[in-house]
Amino acid sequence: MRQKITGPEFFIGRGSNSLAPGGKELISFGSGQPDLPPPKEAFDILKKYKGFKYGLVQGDEALREALAKKYSGTKKDEYVITAGASEAIDLALRAIAPSSREKIGNVLLPRPYYYSYPRNVELAGMKPVFSDLDSGGKIDFEDFSKRVRSCRGVIVNSPSNPTGTVQDVSVLKKIEKITKELGVHVISDAVYKDLVYGKEKYVLKGGHVITVDSFSKTYAMCGFRVGFLHCTDRALVSKIVEMKTHTAMNTSGVGQAVALAALSSPKSYITNYVDIWEQRRDLLHEGLKDLGLELWKPEGAFYVLPKMKHSDKVVSDLYHCYKMIVYDGAWFGASNHIRMSYALDISKIQEGLRRLKTFLATEYLKY
Amino acid sequence: MRQKITGPEFFIGRGSNSLAPGGKELISFGSGQPDLPPPKEAFDILKKYKGFKYGLVQGDEALREALAKKYSGTKKDEYVITAGASEAIDLALRAIAPSSREKIGNVLLPRPYYYSYPRNVELAGMKPVFSDLDSGGKIDFEDFSKRVRSCRGVIVNSPSNPTGTVQDVSVLKKIEKITKELGVHVISDAVYKDLVYGKEKYVLKGGHVITVDSFSKTYAMCGFRVGFLHCTDRALVSKIVEMKTHTAMNTSGVGQAVALAALSSPKSYITNYVDIWEQRRDLLHEGLKDLGLELWKPEGAFYVLPKMKHSDKVVSDLYHCYKMIVYDGAWFGASNHIRMSYALDISKIQEGLRRLKTFLATEYLKY
Repeated sequence: MRQKITGPEFFIGRGSNSLAPGGKELISFGSGQPDLPPPKEAFDILKKYKGFKYGLVQGDEALREALAKKYSGTKKDEYVITAGASEAIDLALRAIAPSSREKIGNVLLPRPYYYSYPRNVELAGMKPVFSDLDSGGKIDFEDFSKRVRSCRGVIVNSPSNPTGTVQDVSVLKKIEKITKELGVHVISDAVYKDLVYGKEKYVLKGGHVITVDSFSKTYAMCGFRVGFLHCTDRALVSKIVEMKTHTAMNTSGVGQAVALAALSSPKSYITNYVDIWEQRRDLLHEGLKDLGLELWKPEGAFYVLPKMKHSDKVVSDLYHCYKMIVYDGAWFGASNHIRMSYALDISKIQEGLRRLKTFLATEYLKY
Repeated sequence: MRQKITGPEFFIGRGSNSLAPGGKELISFGSGQPDLPPPKEAFDILKKYKGFKYGLVQGDEALREALAKKYSGTKKDEYVITAGASEAIDLALRAIAPSSREKIGNVLLPRPYYYSYPRNVELAGMKPVFSDLDSGGKIDFEDFSKRVRSCRGVIVNSPSNPTGTVQDVSVLKKIEKITKELGVHVISDAVYKDLVYGKEKYVLKGGHVITVDSFSKTYAMCGFRVGFLHCTDRALVSKIVEMKTHTAMNTSGVGQAVALAALSSPKSYITNYVDIWEQRRDLLHEGLKDLGLELWKPEGAFYVLPKMKHSDKVVSDLYHCYKMIVYDGAWFGASNHIRMSYALDISKIQEGLRRLKTFLATEYLKY
């Protein structure tokens, strides 16, 4: 009997190096993580690492200082180092949640959204509400500006997982302004900010903004679980540190040492990677269009979200019969779509496209 | 002006190796972490570690298999590897919290309690209620059995931080029974289970029990943040894994590799350490009694909780004027007590006792 695919947690950690049942090589367009290695500086540090004691809950000073130096205008005490962006989002939401259970705490999510957001909002005791992206995969500001009025917070993710779209700077500035006027917190999930293909970059600013970022995508170190948040509102930062004291203590000391080493790698590490991602994007985007699928051309991150009916059955069939992992769009609020990450090498993308072509020409026709 | 000491987060990460303001060596009886190094196997693994990708959210199979082998009768799928015991407690509480905000979710805490518990309960949307320990520092089962009836869960921590007491096996078995009958979840915080001095050990059992444990104390690797939880209720384990997918993803991969290596260290690593802790306990316990302080003799863990009036002022004066970290009992629900960890070497304990003696004979008399 087939194992039921419950959600992304079914696949996470099952990499493209594993053999699928049947012995055929598994091709994973699933979880969004670079297949290319971290900078060599990251591993060098492990050979001499000797720390074993608790560190500061807010994060090691050296790492926060390096971040403050990298991002001009920021200060080390405005940062909290976290177990990846996931913990940063969890803490940020718990920090902005109403103290009384009676109060309404709506959080606005542009839809499609990263699959964790609605659960993160619920787990912080609040309620997710949604604003659908327009037909170009961009935020519909008119709709957004109406819905945000009933909200305590909003999560903006640009470049976006799963759509691959990057919001226009003018819209981001309008969002910055209206949320400030309304006193709405913005969680700006900027984990893909370094992976933008030829579009202007903009990171939301202001005392009402909590920027969430990560070393995972930029430095290919997802498994180390090191991310951070930045906020100029010191009272909110203190609240987050107090909470983290009880929910996790310091982020892994060795992980922070690796992250600090990664920051010291040459800039070419990042620029070379962006070139590779762009090639892969072009290959997958063109390949899927050639198969007749409808999709947005990604401007950042490393995902595509083609339309595909019966996406839940597609995910199951592709995994069990074609040894291919793709994610169900429904997990991202986009039913009848599948999400494919192109964080895998050219030859695997080509093989995946071949398998998909066969599937579309055979099983899928019988649906 | 003196910095205000807000709580344990003020001190965590400020070790006994630092120099206090004024240049005098800081003696830390503060955060509870071993000063002795982890087993050498733990650091050996870092030299060859090469992983950088996401791992299974539930935890690496090899580590869960090693745990299942170590604790007979358990299975690898009953474990979740977490960022220390802190994350395990946070996840366990969020998993047992009522789904509807209208329902009451009381969680019973024997008092004094580990300082995080009440906040952990609140952060999971529930309400802490308390049962005071008896005059011997043990659970008052009559009171406990009355209060537990209105509860959804209870946290039992034996050996206890901050009291150092170990609950009698007969009482633990009565707790096991009554909670099972009432359908109350037990979070059994067993992080100090390996540090018991000449008393019978017992770990609570049953499908309603979530055992929380850690590599931090047993293997002196607090800063790596690797712990775990164990529960035979597979549905609850699945719920926790699903939640962790959104709040943190996998626990640090390199941390898990270090933990697995630590598990392979010889048993003498642990037994030698217990002997050292016992010597330190005797020194501090006798030393504090000689200073005229009233306290329970610890049977496990590495804490003492002497009575001391004006404990908040004591904590501030000892830090700022005597370069000594002690924790305020009030943080643990024990006002007019201070908590001292004896996880530091004999010479430092002796120096700390000298400073305390001077303080008690001078400043403290003027309070």
